[in-house]
Amino acid sequence: MSHSSHASVDPVDLTARLVRCPSITPAEGGALELLEAELSRAGFNCKRVDRAGTCNLFARWGEKGAARSFGFNGHTDVVPVGDEAAWTKPPFGAEIRDGVLWGRGATDMKSGVAAFAAAAIDHVKETPPDGAIVLTITGDEEGDATDGTVALLDWMQAQGERMDVCLVGEPTCPETLGDMIKIGRRGSMSAWITLTGVQGHSAYPHRARNPLPAMARLVDLLASHTLDSGTDHFDPSTLAVVNIDTGNPTTNVIPAECHATVNIRFNDAHSSDNLTAWLMSQIEDVSSEFGVQSDVRIKVSGESFVTPPGALSSMVANAVKAETGIAPDLSTTGGTSDARFVKDHCPVVEFGLVGKSMHQVDEHVNVADVHKLKAIYRRILTDYFR
Amino acid sequence: MSHSSHASVDPVDLTARLVRCPSITPAEGGALELLEAELSRAGFNCKRVDRAGTCNLFARWGEKGAARSFGFNGHTDVVPVGDEAAWTKPPFGAEIRDGVLWGRGATDMKSGVAAFAAAAIDHVKETPPDGAIVLTITGDEEGDATDGTVALLDWMQAQGERMDVCLVGEPTCPETLGDMIKIGRRGSMSAWITLTGVQGHSAYPHRARNPLPAMARLVDLLASHTLDSGTDHFDPSTLAVVNIDTGNPTTNVIPAECHATVNIRFNDAHSSDNLTAWLMSQIEDVSSEFGVQSDVRIKVSGESFVTPPGALSSMVANAVKAETGIAPDLSTTGGTSDARFVKDHCPVVEFGLVGKSMHQVDEHVNVADVHKLKAIYRRILTDYFR
Repeated sequence: MSHSSHASVDPVDLTARLVRCPSITPAEGGALELLEAELSRAGFNCKRVDRAGTCNLFARWGEKGAARSFGFNGHTDVVPVGDEAAWTKPPFGAEIRDGVLWGRGATDMKSGVAAFAAAAIDHVKETPPDGAIVLTITGDEEGDATDGTVALLDWMQAQGERMDVCLVGEPTCPETLGDMIKIGRRGSMSAWITLTGVQGHSAYPHRARNPLPAMARLVDLLASHTLDSGTDHFDPSTLAVVNIDTGNPTTNVIPAECHATVNIRFNDAHSSDNLTAWLMSQIEDVSSEFGVQSDVRIKVSGESFVTPPGALSSMVANAVKAETGIAPDLSTTGGTSDARFVKDHCPVVEFGLVGKSMHQVDEHVNVADVHKLKAIYRRILTDYFR
Repeated sequence: MSHSSHASVDPVDLTARLVRCPSITPAEGGALELLEAELSRAGFNCKRVDRAGTCNLFARWGEKGAARSFGFNGHTDVVPVGDEAAWTKPPFGAEIRDGVLWGRGATDMKSGVAAFAAAAIDHVKETPPDGAIVLTITGDEEGDATDGTVALLDWMQAQGERMDVCLVGEPTCPETLGDMIKIGRRGSMSAWITLTGVQGHSAYPHRARNPLPAMARLVDLLASHTLDSGTDHFDPSTLAVVNIDTGNPTTNVIPAECHATVNIRFNDAHSSDNLTAWLMSQIEDVSSEFGVQSDVRIKVSGESFVTPPGALSSMVANAVKAETGIAPDLSTTGGTSDARFVKDHCPVVEFGLVGKSMHQVDEHVNVADVHKLKAIYRRILTDYFR
């Protein structure tokens, strides 16, 4: 096989074209259309899997029933630009200066999508694999994500489409390209707690039942509690009390109600179920001690998960080492990503660019890193289908 | 002396005429003008002592340099009517039905002012005393009270006017006319506390410094603390945490700031100075333990004070007993009143009507009680000048 038969896809040029699509969640902005055109031209079967106003793209090269199927997952939607006047470059301009490409999504993650799309196209053109390459690209990762990657996975299951393994192309590196692979993510859940007592006059506190001391005790208990000291693959779970609100502007009235919000990021020592049970028992104990009523609403954003170090993470780590010289950490730090949905379908790891400027004004990416990332993805495909 | 020479003043009629004056703080509403006219006609020297938009009335019968001077203090301003549609009688109508007079200020305290004005006029007409009777009536007791009774007392001091003792005619009786005299009041102070940490992402609490656990610990400490167990003349001091606010609508951001408001009602075991010192040390300890910054604003509404049981309270109690058959409790319960200003000038006690309906919709007063209150005040004057 020879490179001369195919003009290889420039991942920086593709990134720039994607950045120029104003695809702020939930707008498609032309980004998925652009990818669909590129992938179709390269022989991928493409299918738009839109659901409830969210646009998603499924693309497969090779047969649905192939013996082996490698998946990439990513998103083309971006967060809002924020204070546009604070940007020194146009946020959708994709200007390149001194080896740096500027714009919203330059890091998170149009460059990642461009790199895996370019790698996949080159791979199937230059070294057609004995298997399938599946790309799932959503237009809603930054939003509620209820009809994004989930819709793609639901549709795939219904259609008998599958990935044997999946690599999510989110930015994962804290400092230098190659320094971190994510092999799992902590779970995340939030609780909105209301404690209700009896309103009254500050001069006669014994005639009222003030919910604030109860809330203070509860928050102190929750915030002081050590959930765990970390597990094999995870840092310790954390609990952050992010809000306490009462809204009483007076000094002579004891309020009837107080609200607090708690966010828990938990590792594989926990599930949202056992954390909910623990939270409820703490709230009940304090409510009972202080004689107040409680009301709790819980939202689980995702359970914790880990793809234990093994064949998939080794393959990715080896490719990273070969292209960058760096042996990446296998980490489970950080927020959530769509890997939390993919992990219910197949082993999943995440590897991508340096995430420093993501979601910020003047988001940008090192052009050389985008080329290197494409090379890493290409090497992974080569290793996988060898 | 003979009653035939003087048509005695009907305190209920005077109350009704005052209630018809819409004197919601700071409006004068015609109430002080009405009293000035009545008192002038009876031989009182009247002087409007207005300051900074607040209207106040000073009235003296007898000589400025009299050997003995008895003072009454009260206010004609009233709190707003609130939900007027909820009133079953016009709030400024002063309707009398079945022995009850209805309207804003019927209890707090146009009836009290009418009763002491009527008693004073009758007294000087029927039994001219060897001494002076001084009435200080303000149009701002329900508001900030910065230019009300304080302005009257300042003016009196500058003019060489004085009261040897003073009776404040506020409602003091919890259930039945005669059941309680107030011989002092608790002090009141409020503190607005801000704790400031460092904002951050909920997923990385170690990179932020959350002020909420610090505030929870502080509030728990303050609310759990026993200030004292009461003193000879006072119930235990109380501390009410009336507000905790953060205003963070998100679950993924740890906030930088949190606010709390504390109200303390304190007895004569404390001063606002030592309570401030105690509060500041608690706040500093917790701030230092949690590594957050603190900012505190303190407002003292009044120090605690007591006129220990003695000649004045005995005289009032005896008059109450003689007219009602009830031996009143000598109490220091309740909120603040203008007695907190008067006590810096002369011994002061408070006695007035049953306060149950004050500040409420359908405020009302028992007509017979207003007549009885006038009789009690008249008897006190008689005893004092005997």
